[in-house]
Amino acid sequence: MQDSVVEIRVVSPIVTKGFRKVADLRALEYPGIKVSHAQITAGPGSIESEFEAALSVPGTIAEAIKAQNEGVHAVIIDCMGDPGLRPSREAVTIPVLGPCETGMHLAAMLGHRFSVLTVMRRLRASFENTAAVAGLSTKLASVRSVDIPVLELEEDLDRTKAMLIKEGIRAVEEDGAEALVFGCTGLMGCAFALREGLLAHGIDVPVIDPIPAAVSVAAALVRSNLAHSKLTFPQPPEKQLLGYDYIHLPMPLAAE
Amino acid sequence: MQDSVVEIRVVSPIVTKGFRKVADLRALEYPGIKVSHAQITAGPGSIESEFEAALSVPGTIAEAIKAQNEGVHAVIIDCMGDPGLRPSREAVTIPVLGPCETGMHLAAMLGHRFSVLTVMRRLRASFENTAAVAGLSTKLASVRSVDIPVLELEEDLDRTKAMLIKEGIRAVEEDGAEALVFGCTGLMGCAFALREGLLAHGIDVPVIDPIPAAVSVAAALVRSNLAHSKLTFPQPPEKQLLGYDYIHLPMPLAAE
Amino acid sequence: MQDSVVEIRVVSPIVTKGFRKVADLRALEYPGIKVSHAQITAGPGSIESEFEAALSVPGTIAEAIKAQNEGVHAVIIDCMGDPGLRPSREAVTIPVLGPCETGMHLAAMLGHRFSVLTVMRRLRASFENTAAVAGLSTKLASVRSVDIPVLELEEDLDRTKAMLIKEGIRAVEEDGAEALVFGCTGLMGCAFALREGLLAHGIDVPVIDPIPAAVSVAAALVRSNLAHSKLTFPQPPEKQLLGYDYIHLPMPLAAE
Amino acid sequence: MQDSVVEIRVVSPIVTKGFRKVADLRALEYPGIKVSHAQITAGPGSIESEFEAALSVPGTIAEAIKAQNEGVHAVIIDCMGDPGLRPSREAVTIPVLGPCETGMHLAAMLGHRFSVLTVMRRLRASFENTAAVAGLSTKLASVRSVDIPVLELEEDLDRTKAMLIKEGIRAVEEDGAEALVFGCTGLMGCAFALREGLLAHGIDVPVIDPIPAAVSVAAALVRSNLAHSKLTFPQPPEKQLLGYDYIHLPMPLAAE
Amino acid sequence: MQDSVVEIRVVSPIVTKGFRKVADLRALEYPGIKVSHAQITAGPGSIESEFEAALSVPGTIAEAIKAQNEGVHAVIIDCMGDPGLRPSREAVTIPVLGPCETGMHLAAMLGHRFSVLTVMRRLRASFENTAAVAGLSTKLASVRSVDIPVLELEEDLDRTKAMLIKEGIRAVEEDGAEALVFGCTGLMGCAFALREGLLAHGIDVPVIDPIPAAVSVAAALVRSNLAHSKLTFPQPPEKQLLGYDYIHLPMPLAAE
Amino acid sequence: MQDSVVEIRVVSPIVTKGFRKVADLRALEYPGIKVSHAQITAGPGSIESEFEAALSVPGTIAEAIKAQNEGVHAVIIDCMGDPGLRPSREAVTIPVLGPCETGMHLAAMLGHRFSVLTVMRRLRASFENTAAVAGLSTKLASVRSVDIPVLELEEDLDRTKAMLIKEGIRAVEEDGAEALVFGCTGLMGCAFALREGLLAHGIDVPVIDPIPAAVSVAAALVRSNLAHSKLTFPQPPEKQLLGYDYIHLPMPLAAE
Repeated sequence: MQDSVVEIRVVSPIVTKGFRKVADLRALEYPGIKVSHAQITAGPGSIESEFEAALSVPGTIAEAIKAQNEGVHAVIIDCMGDPGLRPSREAVTIPVLGPCETGMHLAAMLGHRFSVLTVMRRLRASFENTAAVAGLSTKLASVRSVDIPVLELEEDLDRTKAMLIKEGIRAVEEDGAEALVFGCTGLMGCAFALREGLLAHGIDVPVIDPIPAAVSVAAALVRSNLAHSKLTFPQPPEKQLLGYDYIHLPMPLAAE
Repeated sequence: MQDSVVEIRVVSPIVTKGFRKVADLRALEYPGIKVSHAQITAGPGSIESEFEAALSVPGTIAEAIKAQNEGVHAVIIDCMGDPGLRPSREAVTIPVLGPCETGMHLAAMLGHRFSVLTVMRRLRASFENTAAVAGLSTKLASVRSVDIPVLELEEDLDRTKAMLIKEGIRAVEEDGAEALVFGCTGLMGCAFALREGLLAHGIDVPVIDPIPAAVSVAAALVRSNLAHSKLTFPQPPEKQLLGYDYIHLPMPLAAE
Repeated sequence: MQDSVVEIRVVSPIVTKGFRKVADLRALEYPGIKVSHAQITAGPGSIESEFEAALSVPGTIAEAIKAQNEGVHAVIIDCMGDPGLRPSREAVTIPVLGPCETGMHLAAMLGHRFSVLTVMRRLRASFENTAAVAGLSTKLASVRSVDIPVLELEEDLDRTKAMLIKEGIRAVEEDGAEALVFGCTGLMGCAFALREGLLAHGIDVPVIDPIPAAVSVAAALVRSNLAHSKLTFPQPPEKQLLGYDYIHLPMPLAAE
Repeated sequence: MQDSVVEIRVVSPIVTKGFRKVADLRALEYPGIKVSHAQITAGPGSIESEFEAALSVPGTIAEAIKAQNEGVHAVIIDCMGDPGLRPSREAVTIPVLGPCETGMHLAAMLGHRFSVLTVMRRLRASFENTAAVAGLSTKLASVRSVDIPVLELEEDLDRTKAMLIKEGIRAVEEDGAEALVFGCTGLMGCAFALREGLLAHGIDVPVIDPIPAAVSVAAALVRSNLAHSKLTFPQPPEKQLLGYDYIHLPMPLAAE
Repeated sequence: MQDSVVEIRVVSPIVTKGFRKVADLRALEYPGIKVSHAQITAGPGSIESEFEAALSVPGTIAEAIKAQNEGVHAVIIDCMGDPGLRPSREAVTIPVLGPCETGMHLAAMLGHRFSVLTVMRRLRASFENTAAVAGLSTKLASVRSVDIPVLELEEDLDRTKAMLIKEGIRAVEEDGAEALVFGCTGLMGCAFALREGLLAHGIDVPVIDPIPAAVSVAAALVRSNLAHSKLTFPQPPEKQLLGYDYIHLPMPLAAE
Repeated sequence: MQDSVVEIRVVSPIVTKGFRKVADLRALEYPGIKVSHAQITAGPGSIESEFEAALSVPGTIAEAIKAQNEGVHAVIIDCMGDPGLRPSREAVTIPVLGPCETGMHLAAMLGHRFSVLTVMRRLRASFENTAAVAGLSTKLASVRSVDIPVLELEEDLDRTKAMLIKEGIRAVEEDGAEALVFGCTGLMGCAFALREGLLAHGIDVPVIDPIPAAVSVAAALVRSNLAHSKLTFPQPPEKQLLGYDYIHLPMPLAAE
């Protein structure tokens, strides 16, 4: 794995076109690392509830299988709800990363406690549950939200950044955060502005932009010949499946 | 809610016909409580993985909405993976219960620690995650399996019961369980045999049959005018949804 | 257990007469469920400390044994300190429920986190300890109090309700509660007023009135043929006991 | 507190005479430390259940108040169930120590994890609950029992010691214990034999004999002018109390 | 151990002379207990970071070995970072106590939750980590600081005490503390002033002065013939060691 | 950071020469990533105790500062005790990674629970403490050891590998591990053999070789412009320091 190019596939689990700009993903490439993109065709326009997250899962699984079939080395699910993370890991053998789980582990490595800055208050329970399943509950200082819907984040980018700085300061000063993680992949690219805004207030904490972070961790895993445990995520058994013509499990490997 | 008949809808999230016998559900009725049944039409033949659980969710959500539209008072998802529990709670306002979460809370009330007796080892991580999200990790003694696929449980019922007794004894003696919960709704009806088998070994612990237990807890909630928190499970926002023609969110209530 | 009438005995562990009105318990009955009442004769006038809770225990145990001897199907201890819960479970084989433990489990099922609204600040440690023993520490958002003694709650009911609404709002907005549980059974009947008051502030969370909730859960357990684990709560051995003429352990069952 | 003699009162919460030998308590005295003894007159013959523990509480509270009235500096409850610990702390202002809570904290200071060696298996849940309330769950490796009733421990002392060594070895080798605590104050005096027996098997771990340990910690608290928090254990309010003529709360202190 | 004089050695892990006054240690002696003092000669002038704590460790280990060689019965490390606690315990067989670990366990015994009052905010993560390793995370209410450097605490003692009272009140009222522990051994002697100041605000909680408390607990351990587990803290193996001429491990005991 | 070469410095915190072969580190390089090596000159010959770990810290801090001064982009401490991790992070602003903390987070991402396979049993408490501080206690299934001293691991490499396979199988089958992490950096290079040996037993779990994994995560952090939180790891203050001539803190940065 040391010489060839590693391809990381970012799968956006929503049907809205143009949300994820290819140029932004291209900016994440570096020598030896290629970043490609895919998008589901059945599912919600954006994800702001567990209802929408659930309906994005079948399409996401299909894209994970497709990526593996195409020789891609790792898949990243482009939503902080990590929708379809565990079933996709069962369906394929290449690493599948959720930006939420990955970002939380990185944050726990970089600071004593971290806060998640997300778009809407209603997502708090979901983030706390992700932390509980990841074993990181004691590291999660708080979940704070800017109260701006996902698809409106870019409409007034200055307001979005100002709100991020305001809630970031409160996370540090009131909740005890010592690192920050974006709680929506729609905030990608705002990390620099948030970190600068915090430094201007004398607060020097890392700001984790989950998609770029997940791309680099995925590359690290591929370089290290690591993938998810097949004891935790075994191949599903062959059986009847109605209504999902677009999902075909890969053939199980002979040797394993 | 004290005088009228309460209707509980059991939704089987698999497409295999005949798995859940109406007579078995009828046996759960008592004065004032009616138990009805529904089944999804898109999804897997049985659920033995998170992949299959995920693909049963859209159909389950649709059945929860349908139940509410028909005036049903509470919904029970007929699978110990509790597939679609949280998105269904967002979609409707009547109580939606998962047998796993419900059974675990009951077990924690009845004994110091409990074990889950399930069908296949591969489900262990999933049960431990459910306990973590329910806040019950310290109460879960172990997850043990009989290693029989769901659709074969009834093929040799004596063997199934013998395996349950064997693993139940080990859960008590080796893992410290003081209550037991079935980890597959396909085991419904085996509680009496397991409890008798354990008593014959001098072990007097409650055995929770999750679907009957969930039916009676659902009735308790309806009688007490209780339903899930809309702060935890708020109505999803209106937005674009492709590929799920059979799912229509109810109109949001005016008052709330 | 499906056809006969189920009798639930509410045992008030205080000596003050008239605190628990029979009409209020009668209102909890529904077809097939009868609610009876008993009261201890040795013990405190009300319970606002662990000292008073401890002195209510011998009488409570005696009433639990009496209830079982009279053919009652389940016992509910009418105090949120759950005094005598565990020793009573050892003494009898019918289900004995504490409203605190039961209410906390229900709250954890209905919302992501819950707060307890109680009468006096001094009870906070006690509620947190109950949550720890129940395995629900991660679900308890906070304990808040209205600072009104138990026997004065009804003197100015409007003030009591106003204080409940005020503290309920703070529990949600400041502590992250998404469900509420009354922390004193003297508040029975105030749930509707609290829920209406919260809805008027745009807060839609379940309010658990522990005695009605425990009655319906007790009925659910009896209907499901479930009782407490005799491994956790084994029959005490026969031995010398001085000063408690009113307590006589039931004969141990032959078979078990 | 540095010059005068400190008196520690050991209160045996059982009515069996001769269980606690005065000479054994005298052996715990050292310069400046006097150990006195008291025993309850209403209660059980021994404590092997939560039922018996509960019935020992009123008498124990009465003895704690009497000790304070007599000028004793600290009280130790002579049972590993710590019966009456919290209500006694509310009733008096001098330190009241439970050997279980004290022994567990000492064990956690001395080794990475500890096991409790007790008399009967049925006490396991109780010890785990004490650890949970003390905040020490992660330090409790296991609870093991020698399966000998309390009042028979001295009948065949060699057998008792042999069983302690056997279970102590298993606690270390199978459960990961690195320190041991006796789980019954009836085992007082066996620590040396157990430690010698373990050393003979190459196992060098501390063995905490809870009553001697609690006596020395009580002396340490008195020497340091420390007592329990009155915010956690406030004086109970004055009120009606029936059936406990032998319990009279001390007058509340004027200044505090 | 009951008749002879017990000598406790307080080791100050900083090179600044005069920080620890011998008279203050002498005041901790009582009949049968002698307190001696030592100080490291290589290391930092004061400890306000993990960097400085780390550089105080080799000298502290050397002093622990020297104390044991001189027949001292127990060692107390005079810094709330407990620097060198675990390696010193490996190196010697007499008890070595850290004031932080010891103070936290005492605080957890005396009140429901405790807060640490320290000198600088930057130490918060370190105290939370100590609590995590001690198994006491659920008992730690908060870490608060007076924001005064260690070596300036005595420059304006009135200001230091006023800040302690202010932060102590906030710990109780805002964070839920019910006991307090000083988070810097430089605060030794301020406990009486803080407790008086809190009582004047109607707050009656114990204030643990860690060095006096550790001295009395060390004496309790020695009186009880207890020391740290050699399974947790085994003697290090003989091997090459460069650059620490002043450290010589004691000869391993023959028998063990 | 996207175009230039990233240099990762592996610092071996022992004085034994030849333990870490440069060729093995070179094999971890890939396009854009250079791996350099340094070793401490004061400290122990190998690290098998907290005593030795502590004595390796000053030298490790010095090497971390030196690496930053030389323009290195990240430092990895070449020992699973992560000695000096936190003080080094305070001293410098480039990322400093411990293989233990990093490997545990990766393992928690890849499997439901993980076990550590280390050299000697005595290190178990240390690994459990690292997991507690990292917030990963619930993810650590067990710590198992091959009972071979560090410097003898390569003497009989076949035996080492056989022992690793044996303990790895037990970790999976008895302890519930679903991923494995080497617990000694001296095992570097054995991951392939262990994984092959486990696959031959039908066990398909990831095996994390901590140094290669940490190198790739360090590169990921540098590529993502991430470093440790200066709120968690602030620059130590200027002050007197005796006996460590070889340690000079970098000048604090002006801007931050």
